Amino acid sequence: VRTVALLTDFGARDPYVAAMKGVIASRSDARIVDLSHEIAPFDVWQAAFFLRDIIDYWRDAVIVAVIDPGVGTARRIICVDRGDVVLLAPDNGVLTFAGGEAFHITDESLFLPNGSTTFHGRDRFAPLGAAIASGRSASSLGPRIDDRVLLRYDAPLYEERQVRGTIVAVDRFGNLITDIEIARVAFVPFAVCAGAHTVTRVAPNYAEAGEGAFVVAGSTGCIELSVANGSAATLLQLRRGDGVEVVPQS
Amino acid sequence: VRTVALLTDFGARDPYVAAMKGVIASRSDARIVDLSHEIAPFDVWQAAFFLRDIIDYWRDAVIVAVIDPGVGTARRIICVDRGDVVLLAPDNGVLTFAGGEAFHITDESLFLPNGSTTFHGRDRFAPLGAAIASGRSASSLGPRIDDRVLLRYDAPLYEERQVRGTIVAVDRFGNLITDIEIARVAFVPFAVCAGAHTVTRVAPNYAEAGEGAFVVAGSTGCIELSVANGSAATLLQLRRGDGVEVVPQS
Amino acid sequence: VRTVALLTDFGARDPYVAAMKGVIASRSDARIVDLSHEIAPFDVWQAAFFLRDIIDYWRDAVIVAVIDPGVGTARRIICVDRGDVVLLAPDNGVLTFAGGEAFHITDESLFLPNGSTTFHGRDRFAPLGAAIASGRSASSLGPRIDDRVLLRYDAPLYEERQVRGTIVAVDRFGNLITDIEIARVAFVPFAVCAGAHTVTRVAPNYAEAGEGAFVVAGSTGCIELSVANGSAATLLQLRRGDGVEVVPQS
Repeated sequence: VRTVALLTDFGARDPYVAAMKGVIASRSDARIVDLSHEIAPFDVWQAAFFLRDIIDYWRDAVIVAVIDPGVGTARRIICVDRGDVVLLAPDNGVLTFAGGEAFHITDESLFLPNGSTTFHGRDRFAPLGAAIASGRSASSLGPRIDDRVLLRYDAPLYEERQVRGTIVAVDRFGNLITDIEIARVAFVPFAVCAGAHTVTRVAPNYAEAGEGAFVVAGSTGCIELSVANGSAATLLQLRRGDGVEVVPQS
Repeated sequence: VRTVALLTDFGARDPYVAAMKGVIASRSDARIVDLSHEIAPFDVWQAAFFLRDIIDYWRDAVIVAVIDPGVGTARRIICVDRGDVVLLAPDNGVLTFAGGEAFHITDESLFLPNGSTTFHGRDRFAPLGAAIASGRSASSLGPRIDDRVLLRYDAPLYEERQVRGTIVAVDRFGNLITDIEIARVAFVPFAVCAGAHTVTRVAPNYAEAGEGAFVVAGSTGCIELSVANGSAATLLQLRRGDGVEVVPQS
Repeated sequence: VRTVALLTDFGARDPYVAAMKGVIASRSDARIVDLSHEIAPFDVWQAAFFLRDIIDYWRDAVIVAVIDPGVGTARRIICVDRGDVVLLAPDNGVLTFAGGEAFHITDESLFLPNGSTTFHGRDRFAPLGAAIASGRSASSLGPRIDDRVLLRYDAPLYEERQVRGTIVAVDRFGNLITDIEIARVAFVPFAVCAGAHTVTRVAPNYAEAGEGAFVVAGSTGCIELSVANGSAATLLQLRRGDGVEVVPQS
């Protein structure tokens, strides 16, 4: 039995996650694990980058990602099969970075009978997740597709003396997480320009960073702007989506 | 072994839930699942409606619901046996909508020795939950009762050309959730009057709702007032407990 | 297989906990349980007292506690073996009250290859926790040490007619939790002096407390200052670290 891991924007106080877990637990002996339920409401972008950061660390699991502003419309439910991990989600860009083979789930036989139009997490995703955890194959649930919805997102541009990227996430510590892989920056020393700021200090960790903003290789190997014991987002007045430029230090 | 599912108002930052889980995990191999720990402190009403929404989706589980403003007083600990699901809670109305047969737990042999007067979640509910998950029957723990404490709550009144109900919950999206089952409204088109507002637009889901407040059949089949990408509670200045009237559209 | 229980300051919205869980779930069939991820960022003190409160309620578990302001520096990773429970943490005082035998983990063979300098929770603690859950012994991972880092903390001073202690935690209800064991106060009736206030009322539980602040024996047997349906921290304007004195009532 695969582990079932849940990612939603349902929050912790309402009964939505609890209903999903009931459906899954009633249909499967799978280990049930919370990834997060604190994705901002309808924030498909946040969920997509969340999954990008964790996907390589999971094996033998079904990841059920319900961030679903289009619930009840004709948007598709899709399933991505990576072999060791299967992901289920609405087809709205959440699985942009999930790789794998995508299937459009057209078999409705696993859906709960008399389901709602506003809560497919419980009525569709949960029973599908339980079935896949118990051995049902993604490919048996519908046709393969090659047109899954993708986020509008420009990958970073690596040039000889300049890299252009984007702040793709801001974590709860206020760290500004870019999509620029530090190993692909071809020049040192470099400076990171973002908004009105140029950050030139690089530190190996938070404890040795000293005062003010500094550059650190984050946990995914990408450049982050941080402030030890503080919020880089607040100090630098930057936010997700803002552009970042890496240039040689002059 | 049944799954043990936990509902409390203990929040996520304090050690209370962690202590309960330790007691359960030490006494049972049960799968342990969080329902929510973000019930507002002492909010028996919120917990009762939370359970009402999820109970039918669970099987083979013990639901331990510790919202317990009367902890340490003579209030009873009760257990409701629904066959496939057993619920444990203080006898204060939390199990108003749980159905089943109720038992007053008088057998204290499972309680932790030298327990506290302020934390029965750990000292009484957790070991009871573990024991029931491992096969102990509700009826073996004390006498059957038929006077469990019930919430003061008036069920909706369905008439030929009018329905009166109540906003029973407000979720984190600001959706106003009533207790009026849309299938039992005998007339169309209808309008929903609440406070100073009359809402006449009905939408099948959030994506097709357009601007402003609209009526939608929520995930439990009851009428909800919603605002796409916004909070109906804020826009309409309504809150839990407010009355709602459904009338024919003139 | 031991249960793996997680305590961090990573919060619920970022992918950090989800990545740790992936590493653990991929390497072990262990039951995975959340203790809390809402320790305040870098708050080693809060985590140490959290663990002190729960540790005696756990059996057959690995507790992985990642509150790690020094991540990436030379701070040690340590493991405390209590026989029935093993704890893993950075050596920064988090395990001050954990008892047991401490080991400095010098065996790096279980660390993820090419790990980061900023996220040892995923790259080091998670695979170590999975291995210990699956039977690896603490003592096989490095040398025993007797100089684990301890919090700077003065234990309460119990005298014949006076006890001096400290507010060691404030919970989400605003209860002020001291380190003074009520059973070791040698005189009654007593009063609790804290800041500008003297609290003389003692109540057995919240329901019988009446108005204003009162003294209650908390769930760990220590004196707490509480306000029924309110926050003692707000009413008394006290906070963690403040001193408390217990004296005979005159």
